[in-house]
Amino acid sequence: MKRLATTDPGFEAAFQALLDEARDTTAKVDAAVAGIIQSIQAEGDAALLDLTRRFDRWSPADAAALRVTEAEIEQATAGIPADQRDALALAAQRIEAFHAAQLPRDIALDDGAGIATGMRWGAIDAVGLYVPGGKAAYPSSVLMNALPARVAGVQRIAMCVPTPDGVLNPLVLAAARLAGVSEIWRVGGAQAVAALAWGTASIAPVDRIVGPGNAYVAEAKRQAFGRVGIDSIAGPSEVVILADGLNDADHVALDLLAQAEHDEAAQSILITDEPAFADAVVAAVERALETLPRAAIASASWRAHGAVIVVESWDQAVALTNRLAPEHLQIMVEDPRALFARIRHAGAAFLGRHCPEALGDYVAGPNHVLPTGRTARFASGLSVFDFLKRTTWVEASAAGIAAIGPAAVVLAKAEGLTAHGLSVAARLTKQDNRP
Amino acid sequence: MKRLATTDPGFEAAFQALLDEARDTTAKVDAAVAGIIQSIQAEGDAALLDLTRRFDRWSPADAAALRVTEAEIEQATAGIPADQRDALALAAQRIEAFHAAQLPRDIALDDGAGIATGMRWGAIDAVGLYVPGGKAAYPSSVLMNALPARVAGVQRIAMCVPTPDGVLNPLVLAAARLAGVSEIWRVGGAQAVAALAWGTASIAPVDRIVGPGNAYVAEAKRQAFGRVGIDSIAGPSEVVILADGLNDADHVALDLLAQAEHDEAAQSILITDEPAFADAVVAAVERALETLPRAAIASASWRAHGAVIVVESWDQAVALTNRLAPEHLQIMVEDPRALFARIRHAGAAFLGRHCPEALGDYVAGPNHVLPTGRTARFASGLSVFDFLKRTTWVEASAAGIAAIGPAAVVLAKAEGLTAHGLSVAARLTKQDNRP
Repeated sequence: MKRLATTDPGFEAAFQALLDEARDTTAKVDAAVAGIIQSIQAEGDAALLDLTRRFDRWSPADAAALRVTEAEIEQATAGIPADQRDALALAAQRIEAFHAAQLPRDIALDDGAGIATGMRWGAIDAVGLYVPGGKAAYPSSVLMNALPARVAGVQRIAMCVPTPDGVLNPLVLAAARLAGVSEIWRVGGAQAVAALAWGTASIAPVDRIVGPGNAYVAEAKRQAFGRVGIDSIAGPSEVVILADGLNDADHVALDLLAQAEHDEAAQSILITDEPAFADAVVAAVERALETLPRAAIASASWRAHGAVIVVESWDQAVALTNRLAPEHLQIMVEDPRALFARIRHAGAAFLGRHCPEALGDYVAGPNHVLPTGRTARFASGLSVFDFLKRTTWVEASAAGIAAIGPAAVVLAKAEGLTAHGLSVAARLTKQDNRP
Repeated sequence: MKRLATTDPGFEAAFQALLDEARDTTAKVDAAVAGIIQSIQAEGDAALLDLTRRFDRWSPADAAALRVTEAEIEQATAGIPADQRDALALAAQRIEAFHAAQLPRDIALDDGAGIATGMRWGAIDAVGLYVPGGKAAYPSSVLMNALPARVAGVQRIAMCVPTPDGVLNPLVLAAARLAGVSEIWRVGGAQAVAALAWGTASIAPVDRIVGPGNAYVAEAKRQAFGRVGIDSIAGPSEVVILADGLNDADHVALDLLAQAEHDEAAQSILITDEPAFADAVVAAVERALETLPRAAIASASWRAHGAVIVVESWDQAVALTNRLAPEHLQIMVEDPRALFARIRHAGAAFLGRHCPEALGDYVAGPNHVLPTGRTARFASGLSVFDFLKRTTWVEASAAGIAAIGPAAVVLAKAEGLTAHGLSVAARLTKQDNRP
């Protein structure tokens, strides 16, 4: 964990080193994944069954056994405690409401001289959702990936979740039902991605694949890209917390550790204008680590990648934050909206002293799938826009092509694309062909 | 060129073969490109100058010589004929107006119980625009790539255009000026992409790179992805034309050839319900090829990839079009809007008998950078959305976290993320922690 202060002579170099830190260690699995993809393309369901038996250590009798049935979903969800069921329902309702508000409108223009133009949004037909499996399967991840697709109007959402040793988290099934998932397949890894992208006899192909996964899943998505659309390949998670000295140091420590407990490669950064508060938070982190179940992961992350930066002013903090372009940004100061207005790059922001990122991870409404590794400079969180596409259109009357056609003919000629020019000129009367 | 009819016994197999046709032949240049990228990273401007001398066959004295000066732009644009200047200005004005209409709005919600949420759009800081060089440099491409960025509010647009043998199309410079490009660099190939992505002493790095290029440029973008955002890798162009027998066969032939003249790998498909009209168009294509300057390219494309499909009904035509998911779609029937309403996947549509795709390529307003190779199933044309990103936000009061915090605590516990739960629970009063 690095302690930095903008008053240090070596601050700029140290901060640049922080920016350049590579936390993402991607294993080289491209050859292995190419082989798996080839098997699925060549042998379809047979390969899917074989790989599932090998990697997930259970024996589906046939392809039909790979599909989770309605009865199984019913049975699994019946056993869920009421508080979990209610919490999931609240989360689903809030996430759905937020994403419904994101829905964009079609546009239509008319230049009054014979040319109408417009832009129309339409949902992707079929989407594949990858959900990591076993005990660590996250129902919140199912809601966050599937609900925007449902809200956008996607008709078919095919979910793949591996069930190592036959284990399948019932909350994942409950979340899938709440989110309107159409099919659930007990398959994982690169083979699941390949099945979704190329299709097998049992699993019809989709048009886009979203959802987090391990290095094999990420590489399979990369290789499938172009045949299907994919979301971005998420890197290790990160949070930047801007906090003044009036906050509760224990709260801020927990916010930093909530990030750190995800992964040894996660990054938690505190920026404050109060050196004594920085000290208090660092001490609070050590105290909290003593009793945290995931302390091994959290402390590895905190020690390797954590940082506490003391600034002289919030102007400095804003500048540093814009360079960090963090995935998550908590702003815990007197007037958080004023600071937020000056932030140019962040995946998601959490404003005020009562707004830990975990509220957004689970229930607030906005999506928790966000751009990592400084990609917030150019990328955004998951949204309905990931499940919609646009078709633009032009409608020209004879008067319209008479008005703008000659300019097109001139430009086509300048670019040497003769047939382009002729296709316009042929439709112009002799009067229109003004030299 | 294939003649198909839905009444043929073998139609489905023949149509599926058409769908599966691979027209995109990507050379394997990844090793060469990796080497170029490494040179730029290691030697910056020196490598840029060296590669420019080698590949573009002219000798910049130093890095400053790579930048096109204001004086050079003035001089080049002064010599442009008035009709070209006016045509370019009309195109720029119409493209800008259309893209301004695309701009989305921020959203803000308040649940009335202490939680406010919202979504804010912000422009990417800096964008790199790649423009292929030499005589074949297309000013329309400059307008279509740069104007949406300017309209979206991007502050810095850095354009790279190679100048083989020192040649630089003055119309390209004029288009760059109209579109508000900030800098123009005489560099191309993978080295230009590398310079834009990693930066050199002279060229500050950007956050996203757009614009078409050859296999080296495409591969460099792929390798730069993650450090910067990129647009999609465009494949060979394609058009589907739905036309009844009341159209002028010569017009339709020119529309098909306007596509075919782009590239031997381009694809032009006519779908009609009138066999005699199909014959007339095929004959008209042969006649037009006799005098077309780019006949070699156009006829290679038409013979290898062209298709004329006779259907029994427009219902069939709609179904086939949705499976093709074409980049460009012309609808030349009595009521084009009615058919268009049933089309699920297309990059851009052109409605009516007076609306050739070339109008959209140059002047109508919507973008001509569109999804190819059936990617219109999940992708869209270039737009302001390519230059904007979203930051979502949550603001919670003490009452707000009291209302929804307990649900987050329950879900965090179910997912085994203890610090997540604690970061919320710590902010709840004893009253809030209802079991």
